[in-house]
Amino acid sequence: MFRAALKAADPIEAVRKHLHKDGDWLVAGRKKYRLSAFGDVYVLGAGKASVAMAQAVERILGARVRFGFVNTKYGHGGKLKRVKVKEAGHPVPDENGVAGARELVGLARQARAGDLVIFVVSGGASALTPLPAPPITLGEKQRVTQDLLACGANIHEMNTVRKHISLFKGGQLAREAAPATLITLMLSDVIGDSMDVIGSGPTVPDESTFGRAWEILSGYGIVDKLPESVRERLQAGVRGEIAETPKPGDEAFAKTQNLVVGSNRLAVDAAARKARELGYKPLVLSTFLEGETRDVARVHAGIAKEILASGRPVGRPACVISGGETTVTLRGSGLGGRNQEFAAAAALYLDGVDGVVVLSGGTDGTDGPTDAAGAIADGRTVARLRAKNLSAAAMLADNDSYHMFEALSDLIKTGPTGTNVMDVRLVLVG
Amino acid sequence: MFRAALKAADPIEAVRKHLHKDGDWLVAGRKKYRLSAFGDVYVLGAGKASVAMAQAVERILGARVRFGFVNTKYGHGGKLKRVKVKEAGHPVPDENGVAGARELVGLARQARAGDLVIFVVSGGASALTPLPAPPITLGEKQRVTQDLLACGANIHEMNTVRKHISLFKGGQLAREAAPATLITLMLSDVIGDSMDVIGSGPTVPDESTFGRAWEILSGYGIVDKLPESVRERLQAGVRGEIAETPKPGDEAFAKTQNLVVGSNRLAVDAAARKARELGYKPLVLSTFLEGETRDVARVHAGIAKEILASGRPVGRPACVISGGETTVTLRGSGLGGRNQEFAAAAALYLDGVDGVVVLSGGTDGTDGPTDAAGAIADGRTVARLRAKNLSAAAMLADNDSYHMFEALSDLIKTGPTGTNVMDVRLVLVG
Repeated sequence: MFRAALKAADPIEAVRKHLHKDGDWLVAGRKKYRLSAFGDVYVLGAGKASVAMAQAVERILGARVRFGFVNTKYGHGGKLKRVKVKEAGHPVPDENGVAGARELVGLARQARAGDLVIFVVSGGASALTPLPAPPITLGEKQRVTQDLLACGANIHEMNTVRKHISLFKGGQLAREAAPATLITLMLSDVIGDSMDVIGSGPTVPDESTFGRAWEILSGYGIVDKLPESVRERLQAGVRGEIAETPKPGDEAFAKTQNLVVGSNRLAVDAAARKARELGYKPLVLSTFLEGETRDVARVHAGIAKEILASGRPVGRPACVISGGETTVTLRGSGLGGRNQEFAAAAALYLDGVDGVVVLSGGTDGTDGPTDAAGAIADGRTVARLRAKNLSAAAMLADNDSYHMFEALSDLIKTGPTGTNVMDVRLVLVG
Repeated sequence: MFRAALKAADPIEAVRKHLHKDGDWLVAGRKKYRLSAFGDVYVLGAGKASVAMAQAVERILGARVRFGFVNTKYGHGGKLKRVKVKEAGHPVPDENGVAGARELVGLARQARAGDLVIFVVSGGASALTPLPAPPITLGEKQRVTQDLLACGANIHEMNTVRKHISLFKGGQLAREAAPATLITLMLSDVIGDSMDVIGSGPTVPDESTFGRAWEILSGYGIVDKLPESVRERLQAGVRGEIAETPKPGDEAFAKTQNLVVGSNRLAVDAAARKARELGYKPLVLSTFLEGETRDVARVHAGIAKEILASGRPVGRPACVISGGETTVTLRGSGLGGRNQEFAAAAALYLDGVDGVVVLSGGTDGTDGPTDAAGAIADGRTVARLRAKNLSAAAMLADNDSYHMFEALSDLIKTGPTGTNVMDVRLVLVG
């Protein structure tokens, strides 16, 4: 089931599932485009999986691809036939990212009314396409971001500000590509798959405003700390002297299709289908799960116990599936990741319980600073550790889930998968 | 729906639902007893709700009750017709508890083969019936309990030791009552409703042994700290010189019926039935929920978001119901309780989300050191607080959920309910 989830999240599989050629038709999701009617075809991209996604597009469109450029993270490059690849800084953006973003905007602007632009975007895209509006420098933009983070701003507040000091995010790439036809294929690494959040939504209508960005910065009392260039841009924006990011209904989006081709939801769906095939009754709990890992694990254990006791919320043999991404508050000095810690906590809360098996795995294949994707646990895990003179409770307290499951050969190792749609957790109750 | 849950947990309602007279028949759960065949009827009881439960039995059996005695907490007494009431210490046991437990054992022993003993037990029963095996004193028994707690012993380990230094717990009251017929009616305040845990199972077969009790104390390295009397009793038990607590299959239980008449599960079931009546699709998530309150709340918020996004794990209009009892790690100095804190955390995680309403309430009607049972929250709670210049995040950080919901008139006040079957949480998604 976890393997089925990984397959659905694979960048190449994800693109191929949502984009294919049918004679002269290019089918993207539920829409069809007549290929012969297009002039040039552009493939643009940004994100850690953008090379693989662009590769999938190249395979589908072959020689029809005329121009192409993708920005990816250092070490994530690869060879493409017609698409140039640039590597840049992530998670901290750098000047290579700026140069790449400028290249992407240049190509988008070059596309004409009869042309087709396919934009592939995946996790990391936002940091990989920094394009501060002149005269704002990259350093100034980053200072604002860091100040906001320090104030405890949420992702929506961060994005509102970032979109208004950038020339790329918040639908602005779509405005550059118009009037060409634009198809954006997104591999989502964010909870809820809000398209305006994925890669900061370069091709998605932006509901936020200069006014709101200013309000947020004022609310946190940091307008006085703003670099001069940032303050001047935002105030000019508030006064209406600078064009807003394109809003819903803007003509920039007249020929834009935004499509989520891979996501935690689609991975969870694939796991659920496989569970059903294997004879389990799947119950998708939520793909929106966040919170402290061990407490989220405890809730999963509580649901497993209820299934054993009463056949609720789903009958046996059951497979409870959840997605999203939890956090770990580090208290110890051991080795692990949130998925291994989830399995470790579940092992403790299910100690001695028969008939329940738990798996938690990160779809990127690298859970925390380890070579494992996650781990598997059941009601005998704690006893098996005890037999090796290891204390599950002590190891969990030390955040040492890696060594816990290594000792039992219960780590799940997939190697890096080249994708990231957060985590998948499976609870089997037989 | 919360009211329906409270009604199902009410001691009098709970007893009446599971025990009634039908002509000459006394129907207890699925069993029937011919009343005229019995000699004397005894009503025994222990726990904070035992007076109300005994009252319900008196109403059913009227003048058939010949002898009766219940031990309850100071301030929880009341007037019964044929049953004597003694008040004693809780949660710290005292000599009144010892005297009451001795009285209960005396009456059980007095009952003969043709007699009927009805034993009512509810939360607090274990502390209210301390009967250390002589020459162990109450103080010595308590020292052992405290030492075990300090070692981090779990409830099963605590009970194993306690049952083997007591003359009341672990099925021993049933042995005293045999060969009389014995019906025990339990109002469960423990997760999972294990009958041997409720009130330490005075009428329930005990699977634990002197040997296991000794192992546990050795495992924690505290045998040397044991009072002489305790060490001698346990070692005599290990050597087989003292009778074990009665095990499954023991003749002590030949005529014993143990029945859970009220519990978190039954309260949650009642809420689910009411939800269905009101047109909601109920989903009972689990009655086994434990863990840090705000993270458990976050999981509930995540499930609500999934229902809104995809109609999973249950379609709209949905009512997700959960039970159990969470904990709060106090970090601030505000006023609140786990149920109010649950609602406060849910408000933050659902801020701005339309169509979701969350209620969390304690069935005892007193959440933490407050006069509220819990609170109600939705996607506008945070904004409504903001309009009053209150910060939900700051108040939650200060564990000040009471003042948060007091300001909005969103506290739920039922007054003390005289029962306790832990908490009920409701998440409505319209």
